[in-house]
Amino acid sequence: MLGQMMTQPLLISSLIEHAERYHGQTEIHSVETDGTVTQTSWSEVATNARKLASALGKLGLKPQDRIGTLAWNNRRHLEIYYGTSGAGYVCHTINPRLFPEQLTYIINHAQDRVLFFDATFIPLVAALKPSLTEVRHFVLMGPRNDEALAQIDGVAFYDELIETGDAGYAWPSFDENTASSLCYTSGTTGNPKGVLYSHRSTVLHSFGSNTRDVIGYSAMDVVMPVVPMFHVNAWGSPYACAMSGSRMVLPGPGLDGASLVKLIDTYGVTLAMGVPTIWQGLLAQAAQSGSELTSLERTVIGGAACPPSMIETFRDTYGVDTVHAWGMSEMSPLGTANTPMAKHRDLPIDQQHKLRESQGRPPYGVELKIVDDDGKELPHDGVTQGDLLVRGPWVLDSYFLMQDQALLQDGWFATGDVATLDPDGYMTIRDRSKDIIKSGGEWISSVELENIAVAHPKLATAAVVGVPHPKWDERPLLVAVKADGQNPSEEELLAFFEGKIAKWQTPDKVVFVEALPLNATGKVLKRNLRADFETALTG
Amino acid sequence: MLGQMMTQPLLISSLIEHAERYHGQTEIHSVETDGTVTQTSWSEVATNARKLASALGKLGLKPQDRIGTLAWNNRRHLEIYYGTSGAGYVCHTINPRLFPEQLTYIINHAQDRVLFFDATFIPLVAALKPSLTEVRHFVLMGPRNDEALAQIDGVAFYDELIETGDAGYAWPSFDENTASSLCYTSGTTGNPKGVLYSHRSTVLHSFGSNTRDVIGYSAMDVVMPVVPMFHVNAWGSPYACAMSGSRMVLPGPGLDGASLVKLIDTYGVTLAMGVPTIWQGLLAQAAQSGSELTSLERTVIGGAACPPSMIETFRDTYGVDTVHAWGMSEMSPLGTANTPMAKHRDLPIDQQHKLRESQGRPPYGVELKIVDDDGKELPHDGVTQGDLLVRGPWVLDSYFLMQDQALLQDGWFATGDVATLDPDGYMTIRDRSKDIIKSGGEWISSVELENIAVAHPKLATAAVVGVPHPKWDERPLLVAVKADGQNPSEEELLAFFEGKIAKWQTPDKVVFVEALPLNATGKVLKRNLRADFETALTG
Repeated sequence: MLGQMMTQPLLISSLIEHAERYHGQTEIHSVETDGTVTQTSWSEVATNARKLASALGKLGLKPQDRIGTLAWNNRRHLEIYYGTSGAGYVCHTINPRLFPEQLTYIINHAQDRVLFFDATFIPLVAALKPSLTEVRHFVLMGPRNDEALAQIDGVAFYDELIETGDAGYAWPSFDENTASSLCYTSGTTGNPKGVLYSHRSTVLHSFGSNTRDVIGYSAMDVVMPVVPMFHVNAWGSPYACAMSGSRMVLPGPGLDGASLVKLIDTYGVTLAMGVPTIWQGLLAQAAQSGSELTSLERTVIGGAACPPSMIETFRDTYGVDTVHAWGMSEMSPLGTANTPMAKHRDLPIDQQHKLRESQGRPPYGVELKIVDDDGKELPHDGVTQGDLLVRGPWVLDSYFLMQDQALLQDGWFATGDVATLDPDGYMTIRDRSKDIIKSGGEWISSVELENIAVAHPKLATAAVVGVPHPKWDERPLLVAVKADGQNPSEEELLAFFEGKIAKWQTPDKVVFVEALPLNATGKVLKRNLRADFETALTG
Repeated sequence: MLGQMMTQPLLISSLIEHAERYHGQTEIHSVETDGTVTQTSWSEVATNARKLASALGKLGLKPQDRIGTLAWNNRRHLEIYYGTSGAGYVCHTINPRLFPEQLTYIINHAQDRVLFFDATFIPLVAALKPSLTEVRHFVLMGPRNDEALAQIDGVAFYDELIETGDAGYAWPSFDENTASSLCYTSGTTGNPKGVLYSHRSTVLHSFGSNTRDVIGYSAMDVVMPVVPMFHVNAWGSPYACAMSGSRMVLPGPGLDGASLVKLIDTYGVTLAMGVPTIWQGLLAQAAQSGSELTSLERTVIGGAACPPSMIETFRDTYGVDTVHAWGMSEMSPLGTANTPMAKHRDLPIDQQHKLRESQGRPPYGVELKIVDDDGKELPHDGVTQGDLLVRGPWVLDSYFLMQDQALLQDGWFATGDVATLDPDGYMTIRDRSKDIIKSGGEWISSVELENIAVAHPKLATAAVVGVPHPKWDERPLLVAVKADGQNPSEEELLAFFEGKIAKWQTPDKVVFVEALPLNATGKVLKRNLRADFETALTG
């Protein structure tokens, strides 16, 4: 016997309809590619999304055709999110920082029929175009543009395209499990793989991130996603903020500290999300400019382990609460978020602070377990490390066009991370499975060593990798980038670990470099470091 | 093309599994029927729910069989919520304050196979038993009890029943649209009607109430639902608190001010939900006892319009933020909640306070519209009044066993309320459609007049009803209950309206009564007042 309740499908169009109806006048500030700031609103975004959906229909697209974007966080990108998925097409956000061969692979593999791109990427698109065999329409996200006309044969213009559409377009209704959007992971080996989200998974993920103990967007918030909209949909914020009716500040291409501090202070940003490297730049700039980041109340930091010193600076210097979070493209991306529990209220303040350092606990909708090499479940004791497996309604089932390749282990997705879980589900990522340092049968977390190293005042940043050692198989090597005008010695850096970890976990050696190699999403390419310094302890 | 994400069904069992796994040690304090307080935890509730589910299976019940409860807010009731729905049965909570004939009707109409009841209701169940034709098992919620044995032939005992069950019971998986729970509305005319919730509607409603701008339960919260678990599932809090992993305080039968103040102060309650009449008692007691309700951070008030003076007292005297909310059984019950938006941050403080007085705006998942007598949609201008219609995935589609009776208007449910909507969706309930006073073609809100009257220091409470008038068809009559030791005159009460509303809206007359007639859920029975005072202006 079924319940007797209404059964509207959970569609992405219902998110923008809600924002249009109840938050129509709520402002969205958008930094355009040329650096100017324009103001729009949920109402205007909704209208343009409907016009876009209508216009795309006139191009003869078929349901679930993929539509690619090479774009920054801006208002047109937001309109494309809703105009494509809302109409039943698949919004395929592409990371423009990938290598050209990867871009070609991804766009052809996804069979993108339309490619939207910001003016920044005119030369890139012009160069790629001959090899993009599936794209039928190249659309510059802006008004008519001579540079694009000169470089890209047959290019169309977003502002003209949407004028061919009907603002009275009505969103279609369909199965909530229909594909809605696509994001390729910048894998460290092999070709990139696509994660094909559904309307249902997206709406449920929006609910999950809107619960109070995760991000909990509010209509009182002014939200600035610094994490790109081409990176797991800016952690789903364009959807979750429509659900909550938040103001948004879309920071465009300039993600340097000065630009971000200015946006926060100008538009009264209360909540911002991004990766640790972004916040390093922002904190440095705030310190230099004297901004007190007055409006900022919360930051959500994920994408890489957040050094405790960063949480501390936000808290003690700026009165900003940092939620340390963890997720992955395959999880839409929300996995865990570090917020406290009632029993922590009475702990001494330093213990309360300590508790906030891990990646946090899963919300309803995410299940976690850790297993050993045989797949046997390991205890949640906060100490035992194991391979982390996840399950839930916004976790992928299989990669796009790879349905035939069994991916899950008994219905669980293996994250490739090594983690501990405590009895309350607070998780600490110890390392990527491939980055953990296996020294004489013991596992050493490179992340833990890095957290210590980056707190050293004479370092700008640092990475730790395991390199071959004749006796211990692998030993940790500290790869350090000096802070401006500083010149620390190897001895003082290694001495800095004393008392913070067991002596045998201390790196064997320090090498100094000018900069760390980063991948397209800003993560340190440790495999490059391991290759570069393979003989550091044996050579 | 479908997305490639996992598609776990949204089942109530997944809520208790989450709470068990990640909030297992989180305390639940339960006031038992005899007034003692016991401590349990989400882990123990989960274990007992599994044992109960297993034990019920051994009784030979069939999927979706209804299981009735006549019970207060306590731990066994919580276990029954999960043990029944989780196993695929329908949890049917029954309001024990209904008249015996109504109880008999409801229990037979629902075809309850099992009836769980608290010791308070032994005499009631003994009296009803001969007429309960469908119930096969009567189960007292407690240990073996001589009074029950003496009065109820074949009675079983909860604490013994669950010991026949298996703690290793595994929750079954099934269609998320399956019926999960049932609640009859205490209609003011005709027989009570059942609302049959589904697993899907319940989980989505939990997500909705867990968004920050609605209730937003947190694992930091100590939640006391004063609203009964037999009244729209205590507004869904037993589900939403499992989702958030909140501590709970279940207040049992004693809902007087002194008991509630004591529970708040003893267990550090941070968040409590209930109807205005409950809070009147609590505020009076707090003032008398000198409690400062230190731990209390938020109250959610609904079920009847909350007088602005109550919001003010909570805010100014106790530093408690009140979320004024509105809903109905047919909406699970969440309809709207009054929380502010970013644009209100810069308003003068008195305007900010004023904004908090209405019933608030809908969260994602609820759509509202107001229509005239012809069903034509009316503007959202904050002034135009119309019949309120609602739609969404936790709104009912048809009443239980009344599928053949067309209920919806073009897919919308008519609430029976008259309301205004402003451009941001903030709703003000003007009145029940049947209670609004139609005076010479103009509509006067009885609720607005009552809000003014109850702020008079010499009144304990008051109601306003429309009574026949020879010239104006209807005119408002103020029915007043004097405060202890006070003796206000008709003149001073009517003078109190001056300057607060238009002169023609002022009641024509005051009558004093000892108490207002209330229905089983504590709402004023205005039809009784209208009958009692039918000739007040003509006789």
